[in-house]
Amino acid sequence: MYENLKGVWPAMLTPMDGNGRPEFKQLEKWVEELLSQGVDGLYLLGSTGQGFLLSEEDRKKVTEITASVNAGKVPIMVQVGSMTTQESVRLAKHASQCKVDGISSVAPVYYGPADGSSGMALKHYESIATASDLPFFPYQLGAASFSDGLVGFVDKLLKMPNMVGMKLTTNNLLDISTISYSSKGKLVLFSGADELMCQAVLCGTNGAIGSYYNVFERECKYVRNEFVNGNVKLGTDFMLVFQEVIAESLPNIWTFFRQAIQMRYSVDIGPSIAPVGNTNKVWEEKKVEELVNRVIKAAKIDG
Amino acid sequence: MYENLKGVWPAMLTPMDGNGRPEFKQLEKWVEELLSQGVDGLYLLGSTGQGFLLSEEDRKKVTEITASVNAGKVPIMVQVGSMTTQESVRLAKHASQCKVDGISSVAPVYYGPADGSSGMALKHYESIATASDLPFFPYQLGAASFSDGLVGFVDKLLKMPNMVGMKLTTNNLLDISTISYSSKGKLVLFSGADELMCQAVLCGTNGAIGSYYNVFERECKYVRNEFVNGNVKLGTDFMLVFQEVIAESLPNIWTFFRQAIQMRYSVDIGPSIAPVGNTNKVWEEKKVEELVNRVIKAAKIDG
Amino acid sequence: MYENLKGVWPAMLTPMDGNGRPEFKQLEKWVEELLSQGVDGLYLLGSTGQGFLLSEEDRKKVTEITASVNAGKVPIMVQVGSMTTQESVRLAKHASQCKVDGISSVAPVYYGPADGSSGMALKHYESIATASDLPFFPYQLGAASFSDGLVGFVDKLLKMPNMVGMKLTTNNLLDISTISYSSKGKLVLFSGADELMCQAVLCGTNGAIGSYYNVFERECKYVRNEFVNGNVKLGTDFMLVFQEVIAESLPNIWTFFRQAIQMRYSVDIGPSIAPVGNTNKVWEEKKVEELVNRVIKAAKIDG
Amino acid sequence: MYENLKGVWPAMLTPMDGNGRPEFKQLEKWVEELLSQGVDGLYLLGSTGQGFLLSEEDRKKVTEITASVNAGKVPIMVQVGSMTTQESVRLAKHASQCKVDGISSVAPVYYGPADGSSGMALKHYESIATASDLPFFPYQLGAASFSDGLVGFVDKLLKMPNMVGMKLTTNNLLDISTISYSSKGKLVLFSGADELMCQAVLCGTNGAIGSYYNVFERECKYVRNEFVNGNVKLGTDFMLVFQEVIAESLPNIWTFFRQAIQMRYSVDIGPSIAPVGNTNKVWEEKKVEELVNRVIKAAKIDG
Repeated sequence: MYENLKGVWPAMLTPMDGNGRPEFKQLEKWVEELLSQGVDGLYLLGSTGQGFLLSEEDRKKVTEITASVNAGKVPIMVQVGSMTTQESVRLAKHASQCKVDGISSVAPVYYGPADGSSGMALKHYESIATASDLPFFPYQLGAASFSDGLVGFVDKLLKMPNMVGMKLTTNNLLDISTISYSSKGKLVLFSGADELMCQAVLCGTNGAIGSYYNVFERECKYVRNEFVNGNVKLGTDFMLVFQEVIAESLPNIWTFFRQAIQMRYSVDIGPSIAPVGNTNKVWEEKKVEELVNRVIKAAKIDG
Repeated sequence: MYENLKGVWPAMLTPMDGNGRPEFKQLEKWVEELLSQGVDGLYLLGSTGQGFLLSEEDRKKVTEITASVNAGKVPIMVQVGSMTTQESVRLAKHASQCKVDGISSVAPVYYGPADGSSGMALKHYESIATASDLPFFPYQLGAASFSDGLVGFVDKLLKMPNMVGMKLTTNNLLDISTISYSSKGKLVLFSGADELMCQAVLCGTNGAIGSYYNVFERECKYVRNEFVNGNVKLGTDFMLVFQEVIAESLPNIWTFFRQAIQMRYSVDIGPSIAPVGNTNKVWEEKKVEELVNRVIKAAKIDG
Repeated sequence: MYENLKGVWPAMLTPMDGNGRPEFKQLEKWVEELLSQGVDGLYLLGSTGQGFLLSEEDRKKVTEITASVNAGKVPIMVQVGSMTTQESVRLAKHASQCKVDGISSVAPVYYGPADGSSGMALKHYESIATASDLPFFPYQLGAASFSDGLVGFVDKLLKMPNMVGMKLTTNNLLDISTISYSSKGKLVLFSGADELMCQAVLCGTNGAIGSYYNVFERECKYVRNEFVNGNVKLGTDFMLVFQEVIAESLPNIWTFFRQAIQMRYSVDIGPSIAPVGNTNKVWEEKKVEELVNRVIKAAKIDG
Repeated sequence: MYENLKGVWPAMLTPMDGNGRPEFKQLEKWVEELLSQGVDGLYLLGSTGQGFLLSEEDRKKVTEITASVNAGKVPIMVQVGSMTTQESVRLAKHASQCKVDGISSVAPVYYGPADGSSGMALKHYESIATASDLPFFPYQLGAASFSDGLVGFVDKLLKMPNMVGMKLTTNNLLDISTISYSSKGKLVLFSGADELMCQAVLCGTNGAIGSYYNVFERECKYVRNEFVNGNVKLGTDFMLVFQEVIAESLPNIWTFFRQAIQMRYSVDIGPSIAPVGNTNKVWEEKKVEELVNRVIKAAKIDG
């Protein structure tokens, strides 16, 4: 039923205008470029998309434009988590009027850990899940402590209407496996740690959503497919190189993304919105090129 | 110069209307009530005040009304930290046009730990600090890891314009002492953990800002003063009772505050904004009364 | 050169006599049984082997007997880490006089995190590494904070004499990958988290050392080989079942091991030494059988 | 009944001979010196005393000699926690034959967190508590997670025979207060973080046990008494200086203690046993002198 929800999806970067708003012309161009790279789906307005830093109106417009340019070519999931449940609910209702395939939400922002953890999140999730008929994909709750354990938390999630899967943004693969086996295959799982894309396949994930796929969709999609089909050697060799490149680029990730995308796809995604990327430095072009080429080479698409 | 910045300040609860907005009439009444309780100052729109859940316009109006009702009677500090630096800067500029005595800001919300920690926060803080001439009070950065340690972080803070003090919302008293001795007394420090109000005096704090002072201003102010003046026995006895009451009320803190304030001061601060307080249950009136009376009794104001 | 150091090795359980000492007759029988199960190597006297709870003399005797029964059939690695560096050095010298293929050591026990972390461990490791000519396999340092990062720590390790590889007892696969790529393939790496046996292959590990292989050597060896050779589906299906069985048995792991080994191999490894296993309950035989059979079935050795 | 169990006790450093054994002649001299400094009690063979690094026989002999030199002058508590419960029980029985006033034990070493935490510790503690008629003082369990919370853990402890108090080696003052109020004053509590000696008084502690009191008994005893009797200003000023000196000396704490004690009391406590103190550097005499004098001056014993 949800079998198009799989593969390698970029957590789409939102082109910005330098004044804290989206740059809608570049957005159209960027969505087209990603489609031409062969993305398996698009995940909008999460951490990478800086959704939390945009106004409600701008979030709605980014969803509308992306859905319109995409025109049903690939599945789209919209992150609607906000500071307040009310805004998340409004965004969920709005998404359901666009041509998108699912909504997702982070756990309550800021107040999360301070206020009894999973109970607050579950009710927040439930309000969002029932706001529309779209498939719902909550986040895992990171380091939250669950009064009845991770298995008990998953049990409760499974009872929610429209609950279809989860986006598991964690380096803890044991948690992913636990969610996988305790839901008995009923959930469509996406891993969120790019550095563990192939490892997470072994934990029962159907796909991967992450920021580096904005730059390396073609390579990561190819390697993941090859790996799933038995090329363990390529999976191993690629993941070690990919993780090293991630480690080198992470301290200045926002300028790396901007420069790498400009270089590779001639799209300007603009500067991140402060405070995000506050300390990022401009890279030497040669270094960006070297990092990008290292990943391309490791993917061995042409054998 | 800043010697009025001390003592026991409530992190003021903002009366809400049940639809995600402040209830301004109750706000006026509530500010008057707090003034009549003898607060040493007012801290607006922090976590307790649910500032992050309000629109920019509503935050400005809360500041304006509070400043107007207060009319200079006690010092006021406004928390202006927001998702984006730009909004924080606008709120800081606005605050400087009201009759308030300082601004404060939490570290970057949501993106904080993921993006290199202290560098991002320092630049965020600097933008806010320089947006007005008001004294600035950033938060400590909790569990952030500092490339050059907590002492190095304080050194950098001390170089910022308008840097006057900090609000230290942490249970880690060693961090408070470290900030105290490494700033050589140049910072006006407020502790944020109500449960350690007196203990924090021994770490060089000038005052305490916290949510429970909304209910127990009179008792906490009395005990803290007595303690500072040598009544260590009262400090010890009171803090043990106070911490126990906090531990009992914390799981349903928002309804406790609402009911206790209604009972004690006949002001309705209304419901918290979802997802905050999502799991809070209504208390039995008798239990609220018992908890309130336990603290009152422990303060031994009448000997 | 070290190409026999790979595959699936049990962190060998040491048969105990109920009075805090090894049961040497059962030990001989147990080593023979493990050899007949096809182990790729044996890892002695680590956490699973309760090495830390035995006297120095008993540790030496366990090494001697195991080496003698094995008679060079499979490689043996001896964990010599102790409370004091001196005892570890004596155990390393002793091991070098037995027919074993390597020594290993945990980081300093108890004092570890309190005393500057990696510096203390590096010197401890160096004393042990230079005590003999045997290949040396230190542990990773878990949650230790490294003044110059994990990469800097690996650089220092690589300069030690006899440094051949590491035993990486961590669920953090990013750390394993980091050690793998930063040592540029110069280290022979064994993963230690049984639940992530196949996932760790993708991080560049040569083998896996763990406690559950005492019970499931045949199944785990088969699945790991199949996976390395391209059977990603088996790897995925098996790991989910294996992790679930581990999660169910872990709360009473010591009695599970004892009863499962008795049931499957007719060897009595005896009770663990207090406080280890203090809270372990006796299992219903049927439950042990069900857990064991679940893993056997998932391995699909007969297709 | 236990009213002599209070005040400032050094976690006594054990003079060592450079070959991993105690230096018994210096031990006698050292105990005499500490008595002449006015210690309120002596805590033997804990982390500071390097009890875990000594043989069982040597631990017994240290207890015998200390008890003999002390001859009942001040109360003595012996830390008997070991790798195995059996050794701890033997040490407890031995202590009960010496003239000492209590036994104490750390939680299970090494295996602690891996094996279900509090259950294992409780049974370990119970075996030790019932091995003699001496008052028993277990440690708090640090970051252990308790299935029924810290309060539930304390409830279980209170049911143990000979349970008289606890040694709370934690910086988390909330935990200390929680143990204090939930035991309703039935436990004699000693705080273990030297940096929070006075702050911990406000959490209901009867005394403080720590390593720095080996060097600064006179100053810390004076300040703590003054503080308890109402001198909050001295408590505040002293604690800030004391914490700063601790922070400066901690990275090379073992050589600091050795040199400071040599300088101040002409006793050579010898080198720590590897791996403890592995990375400690020799201090410049002038720096040691400056640090020692800073604390002496801050205590203002002569006004």
